[in-house]
Amino acid sequence: MTPIRRIFIANRGEIAVRIIRTARALGIETVLGVSQTDRDSLGARLATRAVCLGPGPSRDSYLKVDTVMQAALGTGCDALHPGYGFLSENRDLALACDKAGITFIGPSPANLEAVGDKLTARSHAVAAGVPLVPGGNAASLTEAQEVARDIGYPLLIKAVAGGGGKGMKRVNRPQDLAPQLDLAMAEAAAAFGDGRVYLERFVTSGRHVEVQILSDGETVIHAGERDCSVQRRYQKVVEEAPAPGLSPALRTCLCEAATAFARHICYRSLGTVEFMVDVDRAAFYFLEMNARIQVEHPVTETITGLDLVARQIAIAEGRPLGLQQDDITLSGHAIECRLNAEDVAHDFRPSPGRVSLAWFPALPGLRVDSHMTSGATVPPHYDSMVAKLIAHGPSRAAAIATMAEALRVLRLEGIATNAPLHAAIMADPEFAAGGVDTNYLAGLLPRLAGGCP
Amino acid sequence: MTPIRRIFIANRGEIAVRIIRTARALGIETVLGVSQTDRDSLGARLATRAVCLGPGPSRDSYLKVDTVMQAALGTGCDALHPGYGFLSENRDLALACDKAGITFIGPSPANLEAVGDKLTARSHAVAAGVPLVPGGNAASLTEAQEVARDIGYPLLIKAVAGGGGKGMKRVNRPQDLAPQLDLAMAEAAAAFGDGRVYLERFVTSGRHVEVQILSDGETVIHAGERDCSVQRRYQKVVEEAPAPGLSPALRTCLCEAATAFARHICYRSLGTVEFMVDVDRAAFYFLEMNARIQVEHPVTETITGLDLVARQIAIAEGRPLGLQQDDITLSGHAIECRLNAEDVAHDFRPSPGRVSLAWFPALPGLRVDSHMTSGATVPPHYDSMVAKLIAHGPSRAAAIATMAEALRVLRLEGIATNAPLHAAIMADPEFAAGGVDTNYLAGLLPRLAGGCP
Repeated sequence: MTPIRRIFIANRGEIAVRIIRTARALGIETVLGVSQTDRDSLGARLATRAVCLGPGPSRDSYLKVDTVMQAALGTGCDALHPGYGFLSENRDLALACDKAGITFIGPSPANLEAVGDKLTARSHAVAAGVPLVPGGNAASLTEAQEVARDIGYPLLIKAVAGGGGKGMKRVNRPQDLAPQLDLAMAEAAAAFGDGRVYLERFVTSGRHVEVQILSDGETVIHAGERDCSVQRRYQKVVEEAPAPGLSPALRTCLCEAATAFARHICYRSLGTVEFMVDVDRAAFYFLEMNARIQVEHPVTETITGLDLVARQIAIAEGRPLGLQQDDITLSGHAIECRLNAEDVAHDFRPSPGRVSLAWFPALPGLRVDSHMTSGATVPPHYDSMVAKLIAHGPSRAAAIATMAEALRVLRLEGIATNAPLHAAIMADPEFAAGGVDTNYLAGLLPRLAGGCP
Repeated sequence: MTPIRRIFIANRGEIAVRIIRTARALGIETVLGVSQTDRDSLGARLATRAVCLGPGPSRDSYLKVDTVMQAALGTGCDALHPGYGFLSENRDLALACDKAGITFIGPSPANLEAVGDKLTARSHAVAAGVPLVPGGNAASLTEAQEVARDIGYPLLIKAVAGGGGKGMKRVNRPQDLAPQLDLAMAEAAAAFGDGRVYLERFVTSGRHVEVQILSDGETVIHAGERDCSVQRRYQKVVEEAPAPGLSPALRTCLCEAATAFARHICYRSLGTVEFMVDVDRAAFYFLEMNARIQVEHPVTETITGLDLVARQIAIAEGRPLGLQQDDITLSGHAIECRLNAEDVAHDFRPSPGRVSLAWFPALPGLRVDSHMTSGATVPPHYDSMVAKLIAHGPSRAAAIATMAEALRVLRLEGIATNAPLHAAIMADPEFAAGGVDTNYLAGLLPRLAGGCP
């Protein structure tokens, strides 16, 4: 057991603030690595200390493993939290931490390898007896054409090193395979420095359901599932827990498959196993495992009462989980809306700038995770998410009502946000009915007729 | 039924923000009357519009009935919300609103008269069959001495027009009666423009328990009780709901006495009936009725799920309550800490100034009602409260734990606050045991030995 005294946070935005919050509660100091652009960010002000990593663009600061390691060592940190995105699933960073004697608050390099390469992860799923979407490697066009013949169209091209929808392409007809393959490989190479891709059958009516895993390496438990089917271009927009309308049997199968997968790879940390639930076939398929804290973790925290970041830190310290599966109980329903600085009326184009007024209402059942304050700046370099609104209620309808009120009342001035889109989703009878699939949002947008209410 | 379209808010600080929040949710515009000092306040930025009432000191702005009425009429408001404090229980303002055709969001002038004069209120309590602390009028020293002989020492001198502990004096011995009477009369005259006082037996071990009333003039219901026994110099510091450790029978008696009193005076609006619960005698006494929204209303909102400001507005519009007593259900436990800009280490002296950083953690179960933002100013003219932290949990212990974490993590820099005192209360075994009386805080302070942890 190695108690952590000072954490280097290799991230920014709301997740930096989120990690600092729990660290403070635990009496742990924090050092935030910031780009020049983020020097005056809320995270930089809340951390015990902030150090500059380099210029604004991520590749010059947040993505530089050596610079991050030097900053962590130079500030006397004994642990490193990578957040999500950026270097969070980078095996080199985890290895460098191990080598430098810094506790990496995440899984082992071996775990990262087992799930980071999506093809390797698929083979682990097979070995663990977890069902997979039909698919296969596509190292060349010839191989891709062979796999495509087996699985049929439409299909998805996905990056082997992927995540966050980057390098992902839908192909509807054989003649589109070659050009889309080129495009996907180029995108994957740019995003991950690894152009390898693979193919998967496209599930026509699929729901994205994922299971939160906690493991200390001995005890593997789950904290229920989340439904993240409301997506735009493979980016999650709204998440909720529990997933509405799943049969108890299907829910049990999903959660057991997720723990079986984590157990099979000897996973140790927080993680999330993602599935596609095929609504038409009442089946489910393993998609991938995310070996990090996820953007949408608060919906699970809200219905379980767990502090997942605190759990992640405790596991990294080598403490036993101290929880059995029966200790996890779910209460009510939680929904998260990702508020992005983007202009819904102009094809969601990014809307960076200075936030002249940031105010979120103190509604009972509302939690706001945000790095926005009046006077803050949304730089153009990064992900456009400015806040996560998490509404909790005894029922799903109550959570939706709280979210709708929050969206109507909040104030983020100086930038455009997708709040009108979220308001439209919360007011939509189809969403209210529950259980929409990943096609839902693409279908809703035209119905909003050029503008949100 | 007169739907309200635009509310003039005759208040400031967190309660202005609180009222704006609900008004926005209801689609009602708001005009905030501000002093020159408050021109850049959060409320001024959140309101549809802000208008200046005059210079900083309250008597030159927030307390001027004529100026407030002119501003409300001049901005086309059809309703006025007085908040708490300032003019909230001022009968002249309610009358002026009636005369001008502006809906006063509060009780009728007759209601205000029935409870505003504490001696009148006592006589109504007698008529309603509600027990009273032994006491009586003290128009002169002779009369005071007579009453004192009947009720015994220690006793309390209270202002007839009182509220908020102003003009209140404890007298332990006969020889102190005359000087304390002079002092109380002078204080009451300064605070309320009415120097009349009366005497009450001082309950040695008393808990302050109050009952939230909602009435549309036909249906009178209660929303449970609040315990506000943690007080310093008659100022509430911590409030909670439900009151810990009350027997179900006593709770029922208190709530029934409160509704009986409200029914007796034909009360119509939100209101709170305050009682002293005599722990030694297992008895309770009527203290007074507050004819306004109270600072501590969020603890009731949190455990009932009601939006009390929305209810207050709906009643003022003439809508039926639409609730029966059975519709009120209580869930879990809520605690509120009043965060004041004051220096605990220096005899609680006020600590106005510029807040360089204001940040409250997004803890599940935590609600923060505040007008503080980074860069905000706490002016010297007003009440020093800068935020209310409201923690909710399935149990009282869970609510205390959430509050303790919030206090440990929050950041209010540039001013001193009483957060250390609240942290000490949350960590104190006597408070954790529940059911402390109004002497509790005076006893705790010396134990903190010159400084809070």
